[in-house]
Amino acid sequence: MPKKQIRIGLIGYSFMGRAHSNAFHQVNHFFPSKYELVPQAVCGRDAKKVKEFADRWGYASTETDWKKLIARDDIDLIDVATPNNLHHDQVIAAAQAGKMIWCEKPLARTGKEAEDMVKAVAKAKVPNMVWYNYRRCPAVTLAKQIIDSGKLGKIFHYRANFLQDWTISPELPQGGTGLWRLDAKVAGSGVTGDLLAHCIDTALWLNGDIADVTAMTETFIKERTHSETGKKQKVSIDDACSFMCRFKNGSLGLFESTRYARGHKALYTFEINGEHMSLKWDLHDLHRLQIFDHKDDGTERGWKSVHVSDGDHPYCGNWWVPGLQLGYEHSFTHAIVEFLACLDKRKKPTPSFKDGLATDYVVDAVLGSAKTRKWTKVKQVKR
Amino acid sequence: MPKKQIRIGLIGYSFMGRAHSNAFHQVNHFFPSKYELVPQAVCGRDAKKVKEFADRWGYASTETDWKKLIARDDIDLIDVATPNNLHHDQVIAAAQAGKMIWCEKPLARTGKEAEDMVKAVAKAKVPNMVWYNYRRCPAVTLAKQIIDSGKLGKIFHYRANFLQDWTISPELPQGGTGLWRLDAKVAGSGVTGDLLAHCIDTALWLNGDIADVTAMTETFIKERTHSETGKKQKVSIDDACSFMCRFKNGSLGLFESTRYARGHKALYTFEINGEHMSLKWDLHDLHRLQIFDHKDDGTERGWKSVHVSDGDHPYCGNWWVPGLQLGYEHSFTHAIVEFLACLDKRKKPTPSFKDGLATDYVVDAVLGSAKTRKWTKVKQVKR
Amino acid sequence: MPKKQIRIGLIGYSFMGRAHSNAFHQVNHFFPSKYELVPQAVCGRDAKKVKEFADRWGYASTETDWKKLIARDDIDLIDVATPNNLHHDQVIAAAQAGKMIWCEKPLARTGKEAEDMVKAVAKAKVPNMVWYNYRRCPAVTLAKQIIDSGKLGKIFHYRANFLQDWTISPELPQGGTGLWRLDAKVAGSGVTGDLLAHCIDTALWLNGDIADVTAMTETFIKERTHSETGKKQKVSIDDACSFMCRFKNGSLGLFESTRYARGHKALYTFEINGEHMSLKWDLHDLHRLQIFDHKDDGTERGWKSVHVSDGDHPYCGNWWVPGLQLGYEHSFTHAIVEFLACLDKRKKPTPSFKDGLATDYVVDAVLGSAKTRKWTKVKQVKR
Amino acid sequence: MPKKQIRIGLIGYSFMGRAHSNAFHQVNHFFPSKYELVPQAVCGRDAKKVKEFADRWGYASTETDWKKLIARDDIDLIDVATPNNLHHDQVIAAAQAGKMIWCEKPLARTGKEAEDMVKAVAKAKVPNMVWYNYRRCPAVTLAKQIIDSGKLGKIFHYRANFLQDWTISPELPQGGTGLWRLDAKVAGSGVTGDLLAHCIDTALWLNGDIADVTAMTETFIKERTHSETGKKQKVSIDDACSFMCRFKNGSLGLFESTRYARGHKALYTFEINGEHMSLKWDLHDLHRLQIFDHKDDGTERGWKSVHVSDGDHPYCGNWWVPGLQLGYEHSFTHAIVEFLACLDKRKKPTPSFKDGLATDYVVDAVLGSAKTRKWTKVKQVKR
Repeated sequence: MPKKQIRIGLIGYSFMGRAHSNAFHQVNHFFPSKYELVPQAVCGRDAKKVKEFADRWGYASTETDWKKLIARDDIDLIDVATPNNLHHDQVIAAAQAGKMIWCEKPLARTGKEAEDMVKAVAKAKVPNMVWYNYRRCPAVTLAKQIIDSGKLGKIFHYRANFLQDWTISPELPQGGTGLWRLDAKVAGSGVTGDLLAHCIDTALWLNGDIADVTAMTETFIKERTHSETGKKQKVSIDDACSFMCRFKNGSLGLFESTRYARGHKALYTFEINGEHMSLKWDLHDLHRLQIFDHKDDGTERGWKSVHVSDGDHPYCGNWWVPGLQLGYEHSFTHAIVEFLACLDKRKKPTPSFKDGLATDYVVDAVLGSAKTRKWTKVKQVKR
Repeated sequence: MPKKQIRIGLIGYSFMGRAHSNAFHQVNHFFPSKYELVPQAVCGRDAKKVKEFADRWGYASTETDWKKLIARDDIDLIDVATPNNLHHDQVIAAAQAGKMIWCEKPLARTGKEAEDMVKAVAKAKVPNMVWYNYRRCPAVTLAKQIIDSGKLGKIFHYRANFLQDWTISPELPQGGTGLWRLDAKVAGSGVTGDLLAHCIDTALWLNGDIADVTAMTETFIKERTHSETGKKQKVSIDDACSFMCRFKNGSLGLFESTRYARGHKALYTFEINGEHMSLKWDLHDLHRLQIFDHKDDGTERGWKSVHVSDGDHPYCGNWWVPGLQLGYEHSFTHAIVEFLACLDKRKKPTPSFKDGLATDYVVDAVLGSAKTRKWTKVKQVKR
Repeated sequence: MPKKQIRIGLIGYSFMGRAHSNAFHQVNHFFPSKYELVPQAVCGRDAKKVKEFADRWGYASTETDWKKLIARDDIDLIDVATPNNLHHDQVIAAAQAGKMIWCEKPLARTGKEAEDMVKAVAKAKVPNMVWYNYRRCPAVTLAKQIIDSGKLGKIFHYRANFLQDWTISPELPQGGTGLWRLDAKVAGSGVTGDLLAHCIDTALWLNGDIADVTAMTETFIKERTHSETGKKQKVSIDDACSFMCRFKNGSLGLFESTRYARGHKALYTFEINGEHMSLKWDLHDLHRLQIFDHKDDGTERGWKSVHVSDGDHPYCGNWWVPGLQLGYEHSFTHAIVEFLACLDKRKKPTPSFKDGLATDYVVDAVLGSAKTRKWTKVKQVKR
Repeated sequence: MPKKQIRIGLIGYSFMGRAHSNAFHQVNHFFPSKYELVPQAVCGRDAKKVKEFADRWGYASTETDWKKLIARDDIDLIDVATPNNLHHDQVIAAAQAGKMIWCEKPLARTGKEAEDMVKAVAKAKVPNMVWYNYRRCPAVTLAKQIIDSGKLGKIFHYRANFLQDWTISPELPQGGTGLWRLDAKVAGSGVTGDLLAHCIDTALWLNGDIADVTAMTETFIKERTHSETGKKQKVSIDDACSFMCRFKNGSLGLFESTRYARGHKALYTFEINGEHMSLKWDLHDLHRLQIFDHKDDGTERGWKSVHVSDGDHPYCGNWWVPGLQLGYEHSFTHAIVEFLACLDKRKKPTPSFKDGLATDYVVDAVLGSAKTRKWTKVKQVKR
């Protein structure tokens, strides 16, 4: 039986363009289904570079104008892997063109932008997914399964952080290609939209909606040189952000992110404490899940370090054998696996743009609270 | 040369009475100095039990009325190891009697109470110390030495938590002997004064004063049976408390404590992130200090786990040999070692009652903020 | 400039066929060079299954007779991913046909077989590599770089083990497809050739040749049912093997492998202790290298856990960003990267068949010593 | 009820004299029983130093001739804490004097010496114990309890090592006070009797008798300066020793010790692999036991790190509260607790001199095998 082709048009060929492209191939290789992902076209402003990328990754053609890409008939799905300020227009155009859409996280710079995008895909009725890839690390998915089983009992606490240290040097420039994450106009915010957004998405998935928040942000280095103009300019982003919150299920939340935690490269961790069981995860050892189970024999209770690589662990049966770990990139592959499974069953894929909007609403509340220094209600998404 | 005796009168013979008494003997055995600690008298309300305690721990005599104990001429130092509501009166009486004083933490239930106590010892000019023992875990002292050396550079972040899980069961009663920690009238507060106070004291010591805070508390179980009356009554304490803050040095703080974190028995951890170096500690493995040093060779950088048991580590030379770890109780012994060293050099011992007051002010601000849901300034102690 | 194509003919499409095929694609995607790896043909006995594999992995054609595959003109390189008993004939035929050759480990069932293969490639002067992939885990390569720098000083100890637990159940059958590892006639031996061979190869690479050994083997379960015939038959392999040895550099070695260590799935670890520095690695967390450096400040010495994911760590710059870990499969990709680099510089690729022979000689000595219960000299390879 | 006094005469006041003396006091403080340990007299050759020690530790009197100490009527128990070459004569004299005896490990320099000692205590019918203190670390005792419960099923593997790094420097002198461990005449052997003896004792306790061994020793530094004479002399001890063995229960053993493993101060670890469960322990974190339990739910299996500090963990109920760890010294206290419990129940205390002899027989076999380079049977003790 011939496979159903999904012809992909990718916009953006930088870090995320690479991560996504790798996933397209890996899905075909490791998760055979009735779908075949076809790298049909890639789009970027620099014609030479985009051609080079296309050659390397097997894209059949290239574009330098994303509007043209979206207009093409031979594209079934638009994958948006561009800086945050471009998501809004690209997604809406793609929806209007009736394409399926994948969009990098955060969905948008603000809840407002994200609302437009949600409306656009709802109106167009196109399958959509936002790339909150960490949901699909096998250990995180395992955590979700255990939580859904009810084994944890009543939840008391949820805490997460995302700590990095790459902007400590005052010599680091900002703005321009590759450094747009330090430009609030492009990125929307600093660590809040970039790092905390991941923590928030996972939290909403694992522990439900957040009711209200109180937040604190800081910009440690006030001025930086622009990477292209060479001029000193004000730093517009938040270097660090932490917030406390209450979840609707009555549990308390604590979140922190920073790019000034010396020694941590990409330390995304979360922990959830339930009445009967607790779970912990750490991106630096993403193939492990820590479990404490109070029902274990009294003198033999302890935190268990589960090496998530067995055949019956999520996604792992399609890869290697027990004990052989997966890495970062596999989370993208699994995101697509879930998307295709939903497509097959005519279910709405997740994390959907609505899920992305929910996270953007929390980000809005967090940034707002940091300014007003007040507890702030989070706008809720109907799902 | 005969040793100078310090005749100790201990009030309270429960958990902390035992921890202190052990330290008295251990100081004499492992840290010989010109002082000799003499367990002169112990005081408690139950004459039989206090006699039993005295016999076991080598106290020469007993009292059942603490006022009588304080009035005795053959006592040089009063050690207050009673529930929090008794500290105020006992300390003030001891000061008026001209005794040296050690007092269990938190110094008092409120900053107001603590102020009186600070005034009393200032007026009486008696050496005083509050038992924030964790400062004297060798690994924590090592952290202090490293921070004081300036190796960390500018500090960006400080975070600490103290997580327990012993009150999760709704069947656990409250109030009465042994359970006074669940009675706000006696304890002052719940986890804030009991657990966070430790985190705050260490933080002030390592990272300086806190300017303002915003806090959140929760009481998960609203009613419990009284351990003695058997009647249901409202739970008056905070089961969980977290707060965010700004230190005066510009760094951001994040603190959390709870007795509802399944799997954690007494997980007191702190982490400090500086420009050049970061440090982490964990009470569950209190003999280790984690160090990340950015000046290490580029490809060989990583978190170092230092087994703090070498001869040149703080206090360790007086105990065993490298690789052989110390435990919880040694922190009390070292607290006295520091006290005696100050006595010898006619310096003011630390953590002093003023230090205890500073922590109580933070506790006040935290509890206040949790009620008002507003950022709250911390009252400062002149030191 | 058009790339130089290397047209690959793969024999075997099972676990290792998949691992290799993945690497072919990943090399093209992540390590662009002047070479392009082309999956030209795959060979297996079951025509339908091999076709399915070819479709999934992009092989242009299939064969069911490996001799035909080797005879084809449009194949530049033969990749042998078959059970151990087939390596000898396939490699020799490929050499005689003038193909470049990659061969799964262990090179052969015995040193004798391996000698023939080494002679064949020497005579044919074809580039050759044996798939000891663990050399190419970035953390292991980093260990090699540090050792080569001389930082360790004189070496005293080397220890390694490879512990699994998948054959503990007496119900597990043996023999037949997928279970040939339990059949000594096919595999050559049990854990010695399968698991210890990995440990030995890394050891020879990092610490030089082994002079002599004394070994112990055990077969815990004496009889198993054959997976296809259903008949009980004697177990012919070693379930566990450990040996002690002396390296030529004067250091002592200790090795162990087993499939009966409950709780370990694929725990391959090594540790090397030098005068000034020690290194440890563990396949279960393969993205980390543990380093102890005696030159660190006295009170700050400890084992460092290096997250090997920085841009300047081996191979890592071509993948993601710091903090984002790689997994098992990347070791195969890097093995090819090294092969191509040697091809480009007209150097002999490593680990070569000679290296494979050296490991087989150690395996021979180990298995011999286990039988004679005597210290046994290891036959040396001239390199 | 007045307590039954046990008046102790301690010989040796160095490291072990201190460790034992501390335990005497701690037993009285933390483990009240019908016995009271009385530090009656301490003996050492240097009158001034021994007096100082007596004063510090509360010994009522001193001796400088151990024969006089043993002859005293007011001594019930002789505690031998001297270098290994003195154990034989002191123990035999104490037995002949009808004293209870505690003797530091190893019991003797050779099995031959130890046999005499065992005979002497058997003839005198005096309670006796050898100080293999690590049996009494709560986590090790917990391991024993779990093993005795049968939960592990059939045992396949036992491995242990004791790694140090304090003799790496060629500048370190040997011989004389404090350095007798480097003098084979005094110590009997190097790491084998000093470090491996601990590993062997625990192994025999947890896993039963060892049938035969094959061993390897090495002396890395051949000459050292004598600490007192200043003369260069041959190094007589083994710097490193490893051995493989078969236990009588059919499991395989692997042991290693060295003082040349850079980065390890006193890394005594053991691991036991059973059919259903595995256990691991590490002296560097002695308050933890690692447990892998195959009966856990399939996707939730992992190594559990048990913080051995709960009230129902061995010995822990007498100390602090859950989460607060014990240290090295407590193992000595618990050794006495067990001794007194046996005394009370008129049972033979363990580890007895017979147990000490059993370990010495293994040490003999190991040292013998290292010389002959042959598998060597271990002489068995009837128990």
